[in-house]
Amino acid sequence: MYDLYYWPGIPGRGEFIRLALEDAGADYVDIGRRDGAGAVAWYLDVAHTDAPPFAPPYLEVDGKVRLSHVANILRVIGPELHLAPDNADGQNFAHGLQLTITDFVSEIHDTHHPLGPELYYEEQTTVSKRRAALFRTHRLPKYLGYFEDILASHPQSPWLIGENATTVDLSLFQVMAGLRYAFPTAIEHLDNALGHIQALCAAVSERPGIAAYLESPRRQSFNQQGVFRHYPELDGPIEPDNSDPDL
Amino acid sequence: MYDLYYWPGIPGRGEFIRLALEDAGADYVDIGRRDGAGAVAWYLDVAHTDAPPFAPPYLEVDGKVRLSHVANILRVIGPELHLAPDNADGQNFAHGLQLTITDFVSEIHDTHHPLGPELYYEEQTTVSKRRAALFRTHRLPKYLGYFEDILASHPQSPWLIGENATTVDLSLFQVMAGLRYAFPTAIEHLDNALGHIQALCAAVSERPGIAAYLESPRRQSFNQQGVFRHYPELDGPIEPDNSDPDL
Repeated sequence: MYDLYYWPGIPGRGEFIRLALEDAGADYVDIGRRDGAGAVAWYLDVAHTDAPPFAPPYLEVDGKVRLSHVANILRVIGPELHLAPDNADGQNFAHGLQLTITDFVSEIHDTHHPLGPELYYEEQTTVSKRRAALFRTHRLPKYLGYFEDILASHPQSPWLIGENATTVDLSLFQVMAGLRYAFPTAIEHLDNALGHIQALCAAVSERPGIAAYLESPRRQSFNQQGVFRHYPELDGPIEPDNSDPDL
Repeated sequence: MYDLYYWPGIPGRGEFIRLALEDAGADYVDIGRRDGAGAVAWYLDVAHTDAPPFAPPYLEVDGKVRLSHVANILRVIGPELHLAPDNADGQNFAHGLQLTITDFVSEIHDTHHPLGPELYYEEQTTVSKRRAALFRTHRLPKYLGYFEDILASHPQSPWLIGENATTVDLSLFQVMAGLRYAFPTAIEHLDNALGHIQALCAAVSERPGIAAYLESPRRQSFNQQGVFRHYPELDGPIEPDNSDPDL
């Protein structure tokens, strides 16, 4: 029995946890969506728990074990949900890949918040355009090329590690869905170089638990409040950055 | 026997691993410092390993197990080095804290690279000044207050988790050393509110393995190439941000 604590109203980082729980058909409650943001914020007070998280998402397992950070949560529940490699070496590699996805997601977020979370996007659009252009040209192909190369190195399997799907595959599927929403033009430019990632995403979407989830009201749409946001001025083709060198 | 792969010439993120190995008196080789950057870069090619890291640091254990990402490495070697809680709940909480330090370090880095790693600092100084001011005022007190609150909740122990030092304590020591180098004025403004963190840092520096390491030539100084850099124009007191709202 799992209790997921994450802000209501956005897929956000909570969605990486939901996908794993839904794929496995796990028994879980999405506390934020059921009880509101106050129920999520309560645990952020160090007075309310001896293991306070810095930020959502966090997960309670059987009302006892409390886990924070997406990668940490998926590391612990992955084996329970049969979404992890069956040996320690594989699990260590999977956790490294999951942490690379964490970094990738953070950089995607920062394209619309390059000055930090204290300002609204509308207060940092000029800097966002510059950061997003550099992200599209350099970071986006670098991260996606890394995952594509790993998949291409073992074409006999559609999954990143071994012969079975893991939480990392579900997370890469979610990142690609978010990128297609946020940066449709940039991703279209890269699509020809991402054949293995596309095959992975198709395979994830056909898994029974995921297919049912994507059709359900539990699956929330991307919007302008989460990690993945579509601002047309931040999207564009992959091309050298020729803007003002100090802005 | 541990082989650490990290760029030579900077303490950087490799230093979090070195501190754990040095505290425990572990047998390790700093491959980057011994063999140069080329030896570190070699493993980044997917053709050279079936578990390629995205970036250094990474660690080989007994020439076999390969681990990437600071937090993932410390999670695995912490118990071997007797620098981890002795139960699963404690280890899960410790890993969450370590991942919060990962995020904190990333935000510290971004104060001098708010547009991304492709440009030199000198090409993004205007934006850096704005991001650093917001960081000093909002993010720096938030992160440090989080760790201070956890320490204050159990004053009978100087450590973040339980009665014994863990890799997280060593990492917080390193972050504070880096912050005192990079933002001396801002940290001085906060010092009165950080009594428990200061006590933790003093306790870490007195541990025999750490004390010997800090006096050795293996301990590298901070400089203008790593995560923690001192640019006087990015330091300053903690004060409300009154700069141009869209720069």
